[in-house]
Amino acid sequence: MSMSMRKIVADLHAELVRYNLVVWTAGNVSGRVPGEDLFVIKPSGVSYDELTPENMVVCDLDGNLVEGEHSPSSDTAAHAYVYRNMPDVGGVVHTHSTYASAWAARGEAIPCVLTAMADEFGGEIPLGPFALIGDDSIGQGIVETLKGHRSKAVLMQNHGVFSIGKDPKAAVKAAVMCEDVARTVHVARQLGEPLPIPQDDIDRLYDRYQNVYGQRSPR
Amino acid sequence: MSMSMRKIVADLHAELVRYNLVVWTAGNVSGRVPGEDLFVIKPSGVSYDELTPENMVVCDLDGNLVEGEHSPSSDTAAHAYVYRNMPDVGGVVHTHSTYASAWAARGEAIPCVLTAMADEFGGEIPLGPFALIGDDSIGQGIVETLKGHRSKAVLMQNHGVFSIGKDPKAAVKAAVMCEDVARTVHVARQLGEPLPIPQDDIDRLYDRYQNVYGQRSPR
Amino acid sequence: MSMSMRKIVADLHAELVRYNLVVWTAGNVSGRVPGEDLFVIKPSGVSYDELTPENMVVCDLDGNLVEGEHSPSSDTAAHAYVYRNMPDVGGVVHTHSTYASAWAARGEAIPCVLTAMADEFGGEIPLGPFALIGDDSIGQGIVETLKGHRSKAVLMQNHGVFSIGKDPKAAVKAAVMCEDVARTVHVARQLGEPLPIPQDDIDRLYDRYQNVYGQRSPR
Amino acid sequence: MSMSMRKIVADLHAELVRYNLVVWTAGNVSGRVPGEDLFVIKPSGVSYDELTPENMVVCDLDGNLVEGEHSPSSDTAAHAYVYRNMPDVGGVVHTHSTYASAWAARGEAIPCVLTAMADEFGGEIPLGPFALIGDDSIGQGIVETLKGHRSKAVLMQNHGVFSIGKDPKAAVKAAVMCEDVARTVHVARQLGEPLPIPQDDIDRLYDRYQNVYGQRSPR
Repeated sequence: MSMSMRKIVADLHAELVRYNLVVWTAGNVSGRVPGEDLFVIKPSGVSYDELTPENMVVCDLDGNLVEGEHSPSSDTAAHAYVYRNMPDVGGVVHTHSTYASAWAARGEAIPCVLTAMADEFGGEIPLGPFALIGDDSIGQGIVETLKGHRSKAVLMQNHGVFSIGKDPKAAVKAAVMCEDVARTVHVARQLGEPLPIPQDDIDRLYDRYQNVYGQRSPR
Repeated sequence: MSMSMRKIVADLHAELVRYNLVVWTAGNVSGRVPGEDLFVIKPSGVSYDELTPENMVVCDLDGNLVEGEHSPSSDTAAHAYVYRNMPDVGGVVHTHSTYASAWAARGEAIPCVLTAMADEFGGEIPLGPFALIGDDSIGQGIVETLKGHRSKAVLMQNHGVFSIGKDPKAAVKAAVMCEDVARTVHVARQLGEPLPIPQDDIDRLYDRYQNVYGQRSPR
Repeated sequence: MSMSMRKIVADLHAELVRYNLVVWTAGNVSGRVPGEDLFVIKPSGVSYDELTPENMVVCDLDGNLVEGEHSPSSDTAAHAYVYRNMPDVGGVVHTHSTYASAWAARGEAIPCVLTAMADEFGGEIPLGPFALIGDDSIGQGIVETLKGHRSKAVLMQNHGVFSIGKDPKAAVKAAVMCEDVARTVHVARQLGEPLPIPQDDIDRLYDRYQNVYGQRSPR
Repeated sequence: MSMSMRKIVADLHAELVRYNLVVWTAGNVSGRVPGEDLFVIKPSGVSYDELTPENMVVCDLDGNLVEGEHSPSSDTAAHAYVYRNMPDVGGVVHTHSTYASAWAARGEAIPCVLTAMADEFGGEIPLGPFALIGDDSIGQGIVETLKGHRSKAVLMQNHGVFSIGKDPKAAVKAAVMCEDVARTVHVARQLGEPLPIPQDDIDRLYDRYQNVYGQRSPR
């Protein structure tokens, strides 16, 4: 396998640190290996300072270790389930970021009251079920919640956030934006009710952002 | 066109990062080119780490791309509208900074209960309308709210903040101070009502700060 | 005595700084010297920037200075009491981290409403008594609260946090995770009641994390 | 005049930045020149990155510029008043740090509900009057509030914090600790009432900390 996905995944963990989405070793990024039934993921319990392309772990889509000297992340089964069941997903991120996890601890979806949420998530950030680690429960909860939903992030009850994307960078962006809007909407609600955005305005914002924003086409 | 405004605008984005006003690529600075009907603005969707004088974009006052290999910020139309309609404005900044955006999500102006607010903004930081991206709505909302107002910052409902200044640095300062007072007044109100400052004291503070503070005249 | 425990203890203070658990000089790490009735601790009132293996202080288990040119931390008696009475403890950390200290100021234990709390602490983070510095009161409060409890951290009323571990790094991890969950549960409760996690699920999570997580066994 | 107090004052501003007590240029440190009726203070409106021993400003105790090419801080009159009227004070710090300023905006003293507050401040952090900049009103408010009070910090209503110390470093420490306890007590009160600490325990803690803590006497 080429080194490039190992490097991409290793490097992207620095974004979780930069945006304060993780403490100690509690969060992980994975990326599907293009053209193969494999994904690269963080080794379990290794600190972010020590991550290198070399110590990343490669697993098959059942979460079995294929390559690497370390044990894979304890969240590997959830990542694997997503890759098996959502073929368009090329990257998965998991964090316990503070504000998103606080919404998850109360079992509440984050309402769409910011244009930036409409842009990125196309509506609310939904709540997934309470699920224990150790089997496919978490993965099933993620997939059932996100399938057919515009949002690329799901709050897992009493747990934290999983986000997905076409590649690992897009999944990291969704994790960063999820915590940002989780915090802003939380702060807004501390002193009253945020104003709703009408659904057709949410639709227009989402549609525009997905098709116009950034440097997609040369001009 | 001289390189200097490109460099000023590129460099000032680091202040948005330093003061935690932005995540990912969600915020932008622009600066009017002295003596020309042009302004320099951030390219769309490019990360703050990668900004250089060379990849800044130059637009005319209708927001059309004049110079640069990247697409301009998706907020370019709003910046252009401000430059067209407020000839004294030399810099514009847009962010989704957390506390200011939280006031905006509730649709509330920030009351002037801090001497630092009286100094910098001369009173409350006002609320502008809800407006969709894609035409002149946002620019009109900014200009109608700020014209004839002492405040150099406006909270756009459910969206974020726009700030203006005689040059890009002054607009960045207004963005930084806006988030700072948005946070302090929010925190104050979490545990009760802040004490009001009488209007004539606000007037005196504003007048003094605009005329005495800093290193304006040699002594 | 070998230099290694001095270096480990000196270096771990950087983690308290990195995770914003301390300001100025208000927090300390200690580590038991393997095979000896001694522990290494921070010197009193010395800033984190200036800590080196050489200026660490060595004390006996009664808290008497054995080696070092500086006075030991003013919290030395509490650390010593823990080492005397909990022979499996190899590291102790004390901080006034904001959110944990806020729970302590109200005299409330932190309820277990996050899977990460169940993993690391096996349930709530308990409250210890109000105790004055100057004799064994603080040490007794720590030991009486933590003995027979799964939690490796205790909130000392109106004071701050003490955490323990098999070695200093494990105690620092407990201090970091304690503040992280103290903050997340606080934020959750600001807008309503977090959902409880059933006790048998807490038990399963704790059991799994203590036995499966990380890189403990080669594979 | 020796360079040393210029360097001390210039360098200590980095601590205001490190502990997030200031944004832009809104905060200042001064230090009395030993043996002379002079003090060194920050120049007005100069950013923290650009402060050097050379661009510090020297004033007499009436606040008149004695040495330096820049205008002195706009808060110079308040610093000067303190030095004139509190001969034991060797350093003064002013900030608009968020949590302390929030208490000041509501016009509330910070109650002593943390042992760290008892240690450093010997009780509550008191509230001073609302006062306008431009004459001796702020200085008088500081001195009248702090004279005969154990606290080395005062919350000036609707404004921010002033702190004092035997030297500039002690005044900076008081500013850092003031914001730290302002934040912790705020967070505690968000979810209920913090438990009071009995006055005689506050007295014991204060007495011990002032006489025992740190590296004051060689041993």
